[in-house]
Amino acid sequence: MSSADIIPVRPEMRRETPSTASVAGLSIGSYLIRRLQDYGIRDLFGIPGDYVLAFYNLLEESPINVVGCTREDCAGFAADAYARINGMGAVCVTYCVGGLSLCNSIAGAYAEKSPVVVITGSPGMNERTNNPLLHHRVRDFRTQLEVFEKLCIAGAELSDPDTAFREIDRVLDTAANFKRPVYLEIPRDMVNVVPQVPHTYRHVEPTSDAAALEAAVNEAVDWVASAKRPVIIAGVEMHRFGLQDEVIALAERAKIPVAATMLGKSVVRETHPQYIGLYEGAMGRQEVTKFVEDSDCVLLLGTFMTDINLGIFTANLSPTQCIYATSEKLRIRQHHFQEVLLPDFIRQLASRADDMVNPSVQARPLPEPPGFGKFVLQPDEPIGIRRLIARLNEQLDEETIVIADIGDSLFAATELVTHGRSEFLSPAYYTSMGFSLPAALGAQVARSYMRAVVVVGDGAFQMTGMELSTIARHGFPTVVIVLDNKGYGTERFLHHGQHAYNDIHPWNYHKLPEVLGSGTGYEVRTEAEFDAALTAAWADTSGFSLIQAHLAKTDCSLALERLAEKLSKRVGGKTH
Amino acid sequence: MSSADIIPVRPEMRRETPSTASVAGLSIGSYLIRRLQDYGIRDLFGIPGDYVLAFYNLLEESPINVVGCTREDCAGFAADAYARINGMGAVCVTYCVGGLSLCNSIAGAYAEKSPVVVITGSPGMNERTNNPLLHHRVRDFRTQLEVFEKLCIAGAELSDPDTAFREIDRVLDTAANFKRPVYLEIPRDMVNVVPQVPHTYRHVEPTSDAAALEAAVNEAVDWVASAKRPVIIAGVEMHRFGLQDEVIALAERAKIPVAATMLGKSVVRETHPQYIGLYEGAMGRQEVTKFVEDSDCVLLLGTFMTDINLGIFTANLSPTQCIYATSEKLRIRQHHFQEVLLPDFIRQLASRADDMVNPSVQARPLPEPPGFGKFVLQPDEPIGIRRLIARLNEQLDEETIVIADIGDSLFAATELVTHGRSEFLSPAYYTSMGFSLPAALGAQVARSYMRAVVVVGDGAFQMTGMELSTIARHGFPTVVIVLDNKGYGTERFLHHGQHAYNDIHPWNYHKLPEVLGSGTGYEVRTEAEFDAALTAAWADTSGFSLIQAHLAKTDCSLALERLAEKLSKRVGGKTH
Repeated sequence: MSSADIIPVRPEMRRETPSTASVAGLSIGSYLIRRLQDYGIRDLFGIPGDYVLAFYNLLEESPINVVGCTREDCAGFAADAYARINGMGAVCVTYCVGGLSLCNSIAGAYAEKSPVVVITGSPGMNERTNNPLLHHRVRDFRTQLEVFEKLCIAGAELSDPDTAFREIDRVLDTAANFKRPVYLEIPRDMVNVVPQVPHTYRHVEPTSDAAALEAAVNEAVDWVASAKRPVIIAGVEMHRFGLQDEVIALAERAKIPVAATMLGKSVVRETHPQYIGLYEGAMGRQEVTKFVEDSDCVLLLGTFMTDINLGIFTANLSPTQCIYATSEKLRIRQHHFQEVLLPDFIRQLASRADDMVNPSVQARPLPEPPGFGKFVLQPDEPIGIRRLIARLNEQLDEETIVIADIGDSLFAATELVTHGRSEFLSPAYYTSMGFSLPAALGAQVARSYMRAVVVVGDGAFQMTGMELSTIARHGFPTVVIVLDNKGYGTERFLHHGQHAYNDIHPWNYHKLPEVLGSGTGYEVRTEAEFDAALTAAWADTSGFSLIQAHLAKTDCSLALERLAEKLSKRVGGKTH
Repeated sequence: MSSADIIPVRPEMRRETPSTASVAGLSIGSYLIRRLQDYGIRDLFGIPGDYVLAFYNLLEESPINVVGCTREDCAGFAADAYARINGMGAVCVTYCVGGLSLCNSIAGAYAEKSPVVVITGSPGMNERTNNPLLHHRVRDFRTQLEVFEKLCIAGAELSDPDTAFREIDRVLDTAANFKRPVYLEIPRDMVNVVPQVPHTYRHVEPTSDAAALEAAVNEAVDWVASAKRPVIIAGVEMHRFGLQDEVIALAERAKIPVAATMLGKSVVRETHPQYIGLYEGAMGRQEVTKFVEDSDCVLLLGTFMTDINLGIFTANLSPTQCIYATSEKLRIRQHHFQEVLLPDFIRQLASRADDMVNPSVQARPLPEPPGFGKFVLQPDEPIGIRRLIARLNEQLDEETIVIADIGDSLFAATELVTHGRSEFLSPAYYTSMGFSLPAALGAQVARSYMRAVVVVGDGAFQMTGMELSTIARHGFPTVVIVLDNKGYGTERFLHHGQHAYNDIHPWNYHKLPEVLGSGTGYEVRTEAEFDAALTAAWADTSGFSLIQAHLAKTDCSLALERLAEKLSKRVGGKTH
């Protein structure tokens, strides 16, 4: 199966043909469920609670599959991962005790542009007379709404039947257009109310300023055509806006090498001959860093200029050498263009690729990264993170989704070569510990025929790892690799000195199958043990596998070592 | 040991004598640490992270004991429980990924008036030039601050050395005065800055309007003296404001019977001869409900009139029969008094107790609750929640702290008779599932010589139960009773019909000691097994004990049964 086969019809396309059937007789809750399906949402994550039970009862009768989680923040992470893979995701929880438990997950979705629809119940409008102290209430009835105004791109309280349908349309369209989370609160006595106003969904497509678009494309084409060594850095927005085919077409036809960022890893399949690797400042391979920074025309396409993406600001790029195109900004050298939509710019650029052909480019401008040739087992050696990743790399195929937690799990996993697109997930900007395990649940629900592999540190696992319960419940063949160095390893490494606060309580992670009643646990200390465990885990599709890999406290990835080295050279430099 | 012995010097008293030593040379971080100690904070809960490491390093060298938790929301619950027992608590986490994970715990502390100090790091002021995309950032650098403005009573960003000390004083005093959480954010480059301005802490005591206070007290005294059957309902604010001695003195000298609310349970020790039980509308014992509602003068002292406290509004009290005194409001019948502080009112009322003596009162106006006489084991009977609570009740002593999670754990546990004061903790208003386990950690840290007993449902345990890891790490002899009915039992009971979303994945909770490397697990199905497990757990002080009690899905407490019965009688009534 080619990687293209696994990309579903993207919701942007589906949105063009929303359900145009009559909405007469639909309740507010039923209309919301229908519109979620228009955006390709087939599954939803959450936990029931009294203020949202009326909506849960509607969901139960609908085609949408509700995946119950152990806790709300995990449901939020799962919905985020589902949105990254599926195009849009949703989470449904009760008022305040549920909603306010989602703040961190939804903040992460905001920061990394993942369109998650937060749906929450609230006390009925008819219960609010005289401002009673209903349970779950914080300061007043609007507290939760006000908090999510800070964490979402749009939101609405569906308290008025006359406007509820329009508000649902507006909020969902905003999620689709901006790829950010949105918030919908339904007072429980509004769920089954049938509005008495006629309603038709009207799709309003945002448009670019035609003259600005033309000027920008012309300027970019002229520059790239005359550049000596152009290079593309493909960022995560290429995936979010469904522009991966266009970027590949542009690179192939104009013969431009492509790098990616950590957050955008796997946006372009890493086995592509023009792919040169991750650009991540001092953390990355030196050849890639040099290749990019020596370029006279760097096309940063949908790339967030975050500190992590830039190797904690060890990157060295000047605006005078860059075309910087994101959904928020388009800048070519010192020229800023306004009202140019990212998809329009990328598509037009791709259509002009023949005008930019650069004959000097090599098919594979950089050699393959070292160390990932044929993996030769050193059976009795203690397992270390670099060799573990090298061995794991051999196991990946086009049906694997890699999910890395943050810290050295992420840094190490960036060395993996993914085989398709959208197959590497990580919160590489917001860097919230504990994303990976619940995200694996979301990924497995979105792609039940694939296998998620989680690379997670012990500290992160202790935060959300018990969401493995839901993976066990659904029988997904997820493989979880716990990098167990008995503490917060990245902090130990970047902040010198022994600090007791970086040590955590040791768990026998491999015994969790006994608690969860299914799955298989492995405990490994040597390369041979890891090799055997990974082989067995891969062969086993009966349920999850968890491999607890005991690492030395001083072990770390090449990327982390490079970063620490670079930072130590900075006089008085901040160590992140 | 009498119950009075275990009440420490309360922070209100300690605050009167803050450290008046010179602050010259103290950094912002060091001043904060010193002021936390002035408020009696000896321990603090949290998780390190890069933006807060500078402050963590100061904490490490300070007398304050930092208790690392598995996740931030658990640290928040632990700090909340610590604050409820100790008078004030604190939690310290990193920026956004840490802080925003606290939203729900802190919202609960706000709703139930628990003074928790939230301390968080943030990017340095010198890193914010040009608005860079630093990791953990959401919308802009103020997102987290703006969210906590909704969830705290006061907050400050300590970004200005000239005002930092005054801001710390203002914010901590507000927590002490209003018993609500507060927020302090320290940019990481401010922690070690030494302000060059002189500073002296000035304690400003809020004062009552003397005339209003006198009028209110006179009116109350006259009414109580002439009433036929006065009764006190002692609420949780009596504990928060350290007024338990005054309430007891008032009740004893004026010979007034005392009831409590669910949230205020154990504010007055339940073995006191004048104590008549919990008043909770239809959920409570009928004799108590009748006794209170038949009273011609109900003194609601520090009682929140919440839906749960009122048995989901099944209570039947009219303002014309009430004196309603809280920190926010003082109302005697239809007379509202303004600017009368709760402590002043209660103390003056207590000092006038002799003027209110009511000769008609009996020593114990109501019989003891039924069923809690001598517990006679029925060894082969399946264990049910009512008999489990009855057996547990025999085991309680003055060194036990009972912590109930929400749902039927709470409803059932309210039947327990606590032996001292402040020995029953539960989020009985905000009702956030998963409070109990991390709260037990907070309680054990605050009272290391006592034993916390947790009563928790399986759904709640799956949310936060792994904080047991930290209890294991510290070797606390906590006893955890998991009421395992394989789902969200209270929802099943109050919302009729079989809904799959109320079922959860079954865990072998009793095998968690194998994962955590210490503790003892028990699995019980009969009364004999529960009896043996509880006896063994009580005898074992080497670590935690976890008793997994398999319950029938249809099992429920008497209180929940009473509530469901009452609600079913309401025509068209909402079932919460």
